[in-house]
Amino acid sequence: MSRASTPVIDPVELTRDLIRIPSVTPADEGAMDVLERHLTALGFTCRRLAFEGPGGEGVHARIENLYARRGTASPNLCFAGHTDVVPTGPSDQWSSQPFNAEVRDGVLYGRGAVDMKGGIAAWVAAVSQVLADGEPAGSLSFLITGDEEGPALHGTKRVVEALAAEGEVIDACVVGEPSSSQQLGDMIKVGRRGSLNTWITVHGKQGHVAYPERAANPAPVIARLMARLNDHVLDEGYENFPPSNLEITTIDIGNPATNIIPAQATARLNIRFNPSHTGDALIDWLNREAGAMQAETGLQITLEHLCSGEAFLTEPGAFVEAVQDAVEAVAGRRPEASTTGGTSDARFIRALCPVLELGLVGQTMHQIDERVPTAELETLTAVYRRVIKTVFERL
Amino acid sequence: MSRASTPVIDPVELTRDLIRIPSVTPADEGAMDVLERHLTALGFTCRRLAFEGPGGEGVHARIENLYARRGTASPNLCFAGHTDVVPTGPSDQWSSQPFNAEVRDGVLYGRGAVDMKGGIAAWVAAVSQVLADGEPAGSLSFLITGDEEGPALHGTKRVVEALAAEGEVIDACVVGEPSSSQQLGDMIKVGRRGSLNTWITVHGKQGHVAYPERAANPAPVIARLMARLNDHVLDEGYENFPPSNLEITTIDIGNPATNIIPAQATARLNIRFNPSHTGDALIDWLNREAGAMQAETGLQITLEHLCSGEAFLTEPGAFVEAVQDAVEAVAGRRPEASTTGGTSDARFIRALCPVLELGLVGQTMHQIDERVPTAELETLTAVYRRVIKTVFERL
Repeated sequence: MSRASTPVIDPVELTRDLIRIPSVTPADEGAMDVLERHLTALGFTCRRLAFEGPGGEGVHARIENLYARRGTASPNLCFAGHTDVVPTGPSDQWSSQPFNAEVRDGVLYGRGAVDMKGGIAAWVAAVSQVLADGEPAGSLSFLITGDEEGPALHGTKRVVEALAAEGEVIDACVVGEPSSSQQLGDMIKVGRRGSLNTWITVHGKQGHVAYPERAANPAPVIARLMARLNDHVLDEGYENFPPSNLEITTIDIGNPATNIIPAQATARLNIRFNPSHTGDALIDWLNREAGAMQAETGLQITLEHLCSGEAFLTEPGAFVEAVQDAVEAVAGRRPEASTTGGTSDARFIRALCPVLELGLVGQTMHQIDERVPTAELETLTAVYRRVIKTVFERL
Repeated sequence: MSRASTPVIDPVELTRDLIRIPSVTPADEGAMDVLERHLTALGFTCRRLAFEGPGGEGVHARIENLYARRGTASPNLCFAGHTDVVPTGPSDQWSSQPFNAEVRDGVLYGRGAVDMKGGIAAWVAAVSQVLADGEPAGSLSFLITGDEEGPALHGTKRVVEALAAEGEVIDACVVGEPSSSQQLGDMIKVGRRGSLNTWITVHGKQGHVAYPERAANPAPVIARLMARLNDHVLDEGYENFPPSNLEITTIDIGNPATNIIPAQATARLNIRFNPSHTGDALIDWLNREAGAMQAETGLQITLEHLCSGEAFLTEPGAFVEAVQDAVEAVAGRRPEASTTGGTSDARFIRALCPVLELGLVGQTMHQIDERVPTAELETLTAVYRRVIKTVFERL
């Protein structure tokens, strides 16, 4: 029943082809072109979505994104990922050049091997196998960005906004991030905590320690405010999430003089929060607490906030169970549905549909000698193939 | 009744002679020799006490000190001061070279003019006038150091220890620091607050903000400890003193990463305290508070303390009144007995006898174009002469 019209793709070779392109954020260097060529050959309609504007630290950025879809039938199962990679670090510390994609003793070395060019290649290969078996019972799509490891301002976030504005329907999405913890398939991520950074400055009045009545010391004010914020219990936890947590990451005054009352004190905190909060509600709370302290002390307190992602949870249900069953059938272990770890573009996609993360073992990601056994790429391809089939059977 | 055997000394010329010697701490450059020559001519027995050891910032220092006494009768009225001066700062900003001792329009310019070569010269001149009038009814002595403006480790502190060990009796002491505020004689200093600096370090364990259970954040611990120390009321004041006061002078962590829990947090505080405390008792209190916080949090807290001076107060009585009466008789105003301002060597001398500070107007001390009207040097000489006579009449 093999169809001569679509090629069957080797996941290891495609991973190597992608690794050889040094697409360190925000550079694309042709990575999207490689992907588009393969997807076009597989019958996908490819649309490039380039967005630009201020990037991180004020630098203007232009980011390549790709939305590809094959078929119009429902459901539309989407695979999301990124072709950009983090910098290599000192390349002379790698056992082979980080963009050479060398295979030694069955292990493929290179930047992006697990995060996440390997994941993209495995899903493309899985799709090619599914298509070789016959026309699938739904649509397949890809949402690929070149701006996940960077500020993520012009990547998935804006593609999702564009698709939502168009009324494009996506029914479920697998993000190919390296979700596995120790062994392939031992963990999928069904949610993530949100993250809020807040910068706080207390404005006092400098003076000599011998004459405190002529000065206004910001140090005790920031100490008291930080102690108060730290002691506040945000919540007791939420379903599969640990309690939301506030960490003071720094307090700085930088006054070298033992006889001077400083003019200003700064602090920064990070809140990792579960779905019982939103970034905006936490910002309101912090502003209220600072306002109360300002009223108590008479010292001006200013705050800046950056919410880099809202908390989300994909509830247990048909989609999550279909993926867990597929992984168990192929890899021999049922993945834990976890909400631990850092953030990913799933935080944007949740606005469209249920989303989870399923991919390689993440242990070498972002490190020197990032690597993946080629057998694991083959297994992930088989897992993804089974996921596509199972989701189409059940959704 | 003038005695041909002792010269009468001109306070302006002696001040100029001393200013011309660039005795910036710890350099002596012959300043003690000049003084010793004059005092010997006035019948004093001069003893040099040189002390050495680690100076400020680990540099080895050798400091010249002088104890001179004339007579064996009681009471022994001592004058204390220092021949060292602070650096000039940019000498091209001075209207004349800082060691040239120029007099223009009746004003003498130069480093040390008011702090305190002028004060020393005025007391020497006053003594020469007293001796010209006849043998005084007691002993006169000088305690002069070359290490007051520096770390003050090998100056008055060690001379006082040596004199106390010998059993030398001093009944009252005038320190010639520029105690006057706006007009000559408007203020004497009868006490000073003590000063304690404490460096505090909280030792935590670094980690990622997403995994707080694997880390131990020192930031909230230092915030809570600082807030607690700051809120503690040390006392409500003591006689002529304001309440003791604690100022947090800095808090520093220096963590640039928004996703990292820092390993360590430091803070520094300064306590200015009145005689209801001692440095040791305050150190005990701080150590106890830190120990309690360590027990509460499990994080190690280390402290370093440096008490640069105990609080002291010379109680109202015959000596203080004699000095106030003498100043009023000559300068036409009764000096306020104050405990304000910074520290001086009086903090060491108080171990021997009642001590107070009486000297020139301090407004230009430590500044560019430090200066004194020559008429004020003459008036101070007259004031000091009257002080000597009045003290000998009443003690």
